[in-house]
Amino acid sequence: MGKFTTLYQHGTLALLVPGLLKGTLTMGNLLKHGDTGIGTGEGLDGELIILDGKPYQVDSNGNVNLVSDSFIMPFANIHYAQYSPLVELENVGQDELEKQIISLTHAANTFFSIKITGSFSNVKTRAVKKSVPPFHTLAETARNQSIFTRDQVEGTLISYYSPELFDGAAVAGFHNHFLADDHRFGGHLLDFHLDKGEVSYQLFDTFEQHLPVSNSEYMSHDFSRDNIANDIHNAEG
Amino acid sequence: MGKFTTLYQHGTLALLVPGLLKGTLTMGNLLKHGDTGIGTGEGLDGELIILDGKPYQVDSNGNVNLVSDSFIMPFANIHYAQYSPLVELENVGQDELEKQIISLTHAANTFFSIKITGSFSNVKTRAVKKSVPPFHTLAETARNQSIFTRDQVEGTLISYYSPELFDGAAVAGFHNHFLADDHRFGGHLLDFHLDKGEVSYQLFDTFEQHLPVSNSEYMSHDFSRDNIANDIHNAEG
Repeated sequence: MGKFTTLYQHGTLALLVPGLLKGTLTMGNLLKHGDTGIGTGEGLDGELIILDGKPYQVDSNGNVNLVSDSFIMPFANIHYAQYSPLVELENVGQDELEKQIISLTHAANTFFSIKITGSFSNVKTRAVKKSVPPFHTLAETARNQSIFTRDQVEGTLISYYSPELFDGAAVAGFHNHFLADDHRFGGHLLDFHLDKGEVSYQLFDTFEQHLPVSNSEYMSHDFSRDNIANDIHNAEG
Repeated sequence: MGKFTTLYQHGTLALLVPGLLKGTLTMGNLLKHGDTGIGTGEGLDGELIILDGKPYQVDSNGNVNLVSDSFIMPFANIHYAQYSPLVELENVGQDELEKQIISLTHAANTFFSIKITGSFSNVKTRAVKKSVPPFHTLAETARNQSIFTRDQVEGTLISYYSPELFDGAAVAGFHNHFLADDHRFGGHLLDFHLDKGEVSYQLFDTFEQHLPVSNSEYMSHDFSRDNIANDIHNAEG
């Protein structure tokens, strides 16, 4: 297993659907598997983006906080960054950008990460408000999300692409988080326009899926009654 | 990632469905990830079972062969064995046995392995006949399988259980291979009765999915047209 060709994932998107939102991994342990990533805290406590080994949380007030090693999470992705330049782009919307990336990488059947640094406009993000036990479902919790917008912002986008076959474990397609260079804006990206940016990418041949086997609520849950694909794409779209 | 809590998988069941049967990993490389496993060769060349680091192939003539480090595979599972005793059972059919295992382990939401050593009856196995390029689909190739039966046989069953969420990447539920103690019978288990045996199990918290990213046919294939779940359960059931 190559250090730079492995994407580590703790938890699954599917376990968020019925509200299995307990934090089952600490940030300190997550950071043993990489220096770049995304995730969410216990009870969907904000949106995480990890850059150069530093874990930032965008909370539901829109504040960007550094989180401690003891911060716990039900779901996160992380890897060791070794991006290669892919393309420089100007004036392109999200859908067109994602199409171009698939076309340039020919990598739709594996996992990869995209990093974009540059100038963005019409950026719309969300951050979910932390809920407390007994946790609600993903659909209910996502109704308590805050939406933030910025017309013009310099920043960094971190995206993970997952093949359709792994929808449910991950979000099939692109899962994009954002952090502004001024650390005053960020979150889970709902929409954006790239004015000008450097697009780099990193291909993975290994997807290391870690499951919260010590959590009895996870282990005893009956997933057959959850509408996983539908609820994920409504909440994460 | 714990040595004894990780299940390594090369390839996916889904890539077999449209006939992406090229060997993309050598046995020598697979054995760097464990000493116990199952798999198939290029072109679905027989059924593999790895015990104590020794890779056996049951070919379509029913012969059991040791394969070399250069043997190539499109799909395999492997792990480092550290089984714990689960239960001793007598006179139980496959369906009832699998129900008891789920009930005893409470592990339906993670990956685990089962090893059973003992006396089996009414054992039915299959081994697929190797096909050559251009490869046919899994459904077409599986029509060329040989079926073998034994009324009474002492042997070892190796099984991997995968959660429903990962159906398509793996076979959801149990995937059972068998090798007789006399090395004169084995293959992919289609049916069996356990007369008396020791059932042991090993829980995994990590599923390490390795994909054949250097294989251009895999990377360029359009999986959206394949009926993956249906064809897997017809061929692997």
